[in-house]
Amino acid sequence: MNKVFVHEQLIRFSHCDPAGIVYFPRFFDLAHATMEDWFAQSLSQPLPDLIRDRRIGTPTVSVQCEFGKPLRMGDTLRFELSVRKLGNASVQLAYSGKKNTVEHLKMTQTIAFMSLDSASAIPIPEDLRPRIEQYLAV
Amino acid sequence: MNKVFVHEQLIRFSHCDPAGIVYFPRFFDLAHATMEDWFAQSLSQPLPDLIRDRRIGTPTVSVQCEFGKPLRMGDTLRFELSVRKLGNASVQLAYSGKKNTVEHLKMTQTIAFMSLDSASAIPIPEDLRPRIEQYLAV
Amino acid sequence: MNKVFVHEQLIRFSHCDPAGIVYFPRFFDLAHATMEDWFAQSLSQPLPDLIRDRRIGTPTVSVQCEFGKPLRMGDTLRFELSVRKLGNASVQLAYSGKKNTVEHLKMTQTIAFMSLDSASAIPIPEDLRPRIEQYLAV
Amino acid sequence: MNKVFVHEQLIRFSHCDPAGIVYFPRFFDLAHATMEDWFAQSLSQPLPDLIRDRRIGTPTVSVQCEFGKPLRMGDTLRFELSVRKLGNASVQLAYSGKKNTVEHLKMTQTIAFMSLDSASAIPIPEDLRPRIEQYLAV
Repeated sequence: MNKVFVHEQLIRFSHCDPAGIVYFPRFFDLAHATMEDWFAQSLSQPLPDLIRDRRIGTPTVSVQCEFGKPLRMGDTLRFELSVRKLGNASVQLAYSGKKNTVEHLKMTQTIAFMSLDSASAIPIPEDLRPRIEQYLAV
Repeated sequence: MNKVFVHEQLIRFSHCDPAGIVYFPRFFDLAHATMEDWFAQSLSQPLPDLIRDRRIGTPTVSVQCEFGKPLRMGDTLRFELSVRKLGNASVQLAYSGKKNTVEHLKMTQTIAFMSLDSASAIPIPEDLRPRIEQYLAV
Repeated sequence: MNKVFVHEQLIRFSHCDPAGIVYFPRFFDLAHATMEDWFAQSLSQPLPDLIRDRRIGTPTVSVQCEFGKPLRMGDTLRFELSVRKLGNASVQLAYSGKKNTVEHLKMTQTIAFMSLDSASAIPIPEDLRPRIEQYLAV
Repeated sequence: MNKVFVHEQLIRFSHCDPAGIVYFPRFFDLAHATMEDWFAQSLSQPLPDLIRDRRIGTPTVSVQCEFGKPLRMGDTLRFELSVRKLGNASVQLAYSGKKNTVEHLKMTQTIAFMSLDSASAIPIPEDLRPRIEQYLAV
C-alpha cells in the first residue's frame, strides 16, 4: 500500500504558449492522460471500457493547482499520482509534477463516479475500490 | 467600487467530450478568454500589447475550480469576473460561471505580473492598478 | 444564390505557439466555430439540435488548407464561408481567411450527413438543402 | 532510402467529441507529435533545439487530409511518416494513419524552413537534408 503511479510525458510544441512555456490549461490535459493510464495500467479498468461497457463516468468535481516553476517544450514532465482521500462516491487524487527531481507544480483533483444513464452519483464500484485504496497516501 | 466584468461565450462542439458535456480543462481556456477581454475592454490594456510592447507577462500562479453542474454544447456560459485580492505583484480573480442565472462552476485564479526579460516578478504596473482596483469585491 | 457567411473571431493567446503565431491545427477549430454559427444563424439549424434531436452528425470527410500568411494574437480573423459543391449526402465548404481585406489562408472542407443511429451516410435533409444551396458559389 | 518512421499514439478522452470519435482537428495535433518525434529520433534534431538554438522554425504551408474511418478513445493510432517531396526550402510529408493494419486516414503536410530572425524562407539546413532524404518515398 502507499503505491504511487508514475507517468512521464514529453512537453510538446502544442502545449506551449507565446511565452514559450506550457499554457496552464494544458496541464489539466496532461494530468487527465496520467489518470487515464492509471485506470488502464494500475486499476485494470480502462476508462473507455468503464464509459462504454459499464456506463460509468468519472466527472471532475473540483481541482486545485499551484504552478511553481514553468515547463518548456522538450522538458519531460513526470507526474506522481497518489490518492489523498477515498469517499463513498468520490476520490481525491494528488499529482506532483516534476522535472528531473524538482517539483514544478502540484495539483489535486476530485473525481466522482456517476451513472451515465441516471446522471447521478454512484458508490465507487466494488471491484475498483481495493485497487484504488492501494494508492492511498498514508 | 465593485465592478463586475460580464463575458458570455457559446459552448461549442469542440469544448465537449464523449459524455456530451464540457471537458473540464476547456473551462480554463474559456476563463482565459474572459480575462483577455477584461484586460482589453475594461483595463484598456490588451494582453498582446502588454506582452509584445511592454514585455510583461501574466503567468497563472494558482487556480481552483469547483464544477457544480455540467454545461452542454449550445449552452451559453456567462462568466462574471471580479477581483478578490490585490497584492503587490499579483491579483486573485474570481469567476462565477453561470447558465441563465444559475451558477454552474466557480473558479479563482491568481496571476502574477512578470518581466519577460528578467523572468522575475514585478509590481502591478502603476497605470493598471487603479483600473484593476475598480473590480475589487468588497 | 451566392450568399457568403462572414464570421469574425479574435485570435487569442491560446491559439498561438512559441513562435507567437497561430498553431495551425487551431485554424480548424476556428473554422469549425464558423461552420457552427453558419448552421445556427444561416441554416436555422443549430448543430447541437441536429445531433441531439435529429440524431444526425456532420463528420468531416476531407480538408485542405493553404496557410499563406501567419496570424498573431490580437489579430481578427475573418472567415468568409461559401459552398463549393453540393452532393447528395455531402457538402464542400470553402473558407477564405482574411485579416483586414487580405487573404491569409484558404481552406476547403467536405462534410457528410450521417445518421448517428445507423452510422451510415444519409441524404442532405430536405429542409436544409435549399438553405445550403443559397451559399453555393456560382 | 525509403525509410518509414512509425509512431503509435493512444487515442484519449480529450481527443474525442460528443459523437465519441476523434474530433478531426486533433489529428493535426497527433501528426505534429509524430513529426516532432521524427525530428528528435530520426533526424537527431529536436525541434525545441532547432527553434531555440538555431532560430529556425518549420511552419506548415499546406495540409490535406482524408478521413476514411473514424477512431475512438482507447484505439491506438499508428502513423507511418514518409517524405513525398524534397524541395529547396520545403518538405512534403505523407502520413498514413492506421488502426491495426487498416488505414483510417491519410494526410500530407508541407513544411518550410524559416529563419525566425528574418522571418524568411531558408534552404533546408545542410546537415538535415541527407537525413530527411532517407525517408523519401521512391
